[in-house]
Amino acid sequence: MSEPPGEAAAEQDAREREVLARVLASFADTPDPRMRTVMQSLVRHLHAFLREARITEAEWAQAIAFLTDAGHITDARRQEFVLLSDVLGASMQTITINHPAVAAATEATVLGPFFVQGSPHVELGGDIAFGAPGEPCWVQGQVLDTAGRPVPGARLEVWEADDDGLYDVQREGDRLSARAHLFADAEGRYRFWALTPTPYPIPHDGPVGRLLAATARSPMRAPHLHFKVAAPGCRELITHIFVDGDPLLGSDAVFGVRESLIKRFERQAPGTPAPDGRPLGDAAWSRVRFDVVLAPAGR
Amino acid sequence: MSEPPGEAAAEQDAREREVLARVLASFADTPDPRMRTVMQSLVRHLHAFLREARITEAEWAQAIAFLTDAGHITDARRQEFVLLSDVLGASMQTITINHPAVAAATEATVLGPFFVQGSPHVELGGDIAFGAPGEPCWVQGQVLDTAGRPVPGARLEVWEADDDGLYDVQREGDRLSARAHLFADAEGRYRFWALTPTPYPIPHDGPVGRLLAATARSPMRAPHLHFKVAAPGCRELITHIFVDGDPLLGSDAVFGVRESLIKRFERQAPGTPAPDGRPLGDAAWSRVRFDVVLAPAGR
Repeated sequence: MSEPPGEAAAEQDAREREVLARVLASFADTPDPRMRTVMQSLVRHLHAFLREARITEAEWAQAIAFLTDAGHITDARRQEFVLLSDVLGASMQTITINHPAVAAATEATVLGPFFVQGSPHVELGGDIAFGAPGEPCWVQGQVLDTAGRPVPGARLEVWEADDDGLYDVQREGDRLSARAHLFADAEGRYRFWALTPTPYPIPHDGPVGRLLAATARSPMRAPHLHFKVAAPGCRELITHIFVDGDPLLGSDAVFGVRESLIKRFERQAPGTPAPDGRPLGDAAWSRVRFDVVLAPAGR
Repeated sequence: MSEPPGEAAAEQDAREREVLARVLASFADTPDPRMRTVMQSLVRHLHAFLREARITEAEWAQAIAFLTDAGHITDARRQEFVLLSDVLGASMQTITINHPAVAAATEATVLGPFFVQGSPHVELGGDIAFGAPGEPCWVQGQVLDTAGRPVPGARLEVWEADDDGLYDVQREGDRLSARAHLFADAEGRYRFWALTPTPYPIPHDGPVGRLLAATARSPMRAPHLHFKVAAPGCRELITHIFVDGDPLLGSDAVFGVRESLIKRFERQAPGTPAPDGRPLGDAAWSRVRFDVVLAPAGR
């Protein structure tokens, strides 16, 4: 070629920058300033990715085909784009951005796709299983504010997968089980029976599952119990607690694990008397303590 | 709060970085090194976008809903994800990255969704319209290499929208029109009749159209004629030529316009004799010259 390579590289760089500049300029008249900011930021980072990774036309066509497949498997019960967001850590990053660190407050984690409105109410000490199979687990703790004061009457919503690795909403029919809500007492104390959490895979028979397989990643979620805790004057908390010592803690498919959310689930030998005198016969059971610290509202 | 704001900000930054680090690490065992590179680059830029724009949970839910809608409108005839890629400039950037600047060689631009295999063959000087409505346009030029030598027998594939703003494949039925292929002569010279290009909108009755409307962008493409030129020993060229002076040149919806691809389409007064003696009666017509310079293969 007639020109030195450095000159060709400079011309190439100029052409790529020009494309980016034209796209950014095309959003300059967006009436809503927030939308303009978001679109221009998206465009800058999208083009930075394409340019850094030197994405080929064949690879870009593969990406388009992946999104198409994800769109076609998505329906009222299956949300492949949420799964994609989850396995790329985008869901967890969005949670992290929007729940700023507040000293001493319990950390948030992903809501997940299995929360539903209208769970049954249980009294303090009640059983949320409603017949779902699994090992009984006694859960107790206290809801506090960041100054260490009890939060009386906090509302706790709890839900989890059963021993088959399924949430109630993943089963046929519309019976609710392994989910409930309850209210802490005047001292913020709460207690209930649940199931010892067990591992389960995220839905992995679609494009996201194929992505995980191609990247040698596991679709398994580390065992956990979901909490959603609300009280007047406090920031609502959506979180999980995880099982200390579980081998999946380091490879949770959706990056929901936070060190501070790992709790000791103490296994109880068969025959050990239950804290509330519940007759458990010769069944093994477990217990865990989880004190919830709520940040002030507006933080 | 008990801690100074700087400390909270540092803790927040550390939490966000930790999420990113865990996601990057999850792709470390990807067997294919190219896939590992691409996924880690994607994750870095995706998280940089989320963090920079401070995307809210409601905004992220909107993005998921947008992708879901795009998936549901996409079928064998409509590809909303390609449209999305086009209007974000990602298609044009990918073209630019993969067709490095070579001095003197004609620049590439987007292929677009309307290229189809199996176009009719026309002889030199033939008419590609095949009945499509529009003003006749005489197109001629020469195919050259970057040293200025003629490229004999180059294959040219040409296609365009008609005067109604539609490609043949957008109409009912399977009749091909306003598209053809032909071969340059021993001197690389070519000539054919086409239609003077006219503007048309990209499909804008779906989520991408709503995005354009919300950002005050036009769905119109600047008028153009597509070329795909191939010859042994040369890099295949996919490009358009655009109409000098057209008011849409600065706002092409897919960023396909390049300065070097804007050509003078000379309008001819009704009655002006055609170069090949074709009887045009009192119809107006136009003519354009486009010399194609092909880069060497492998560049």
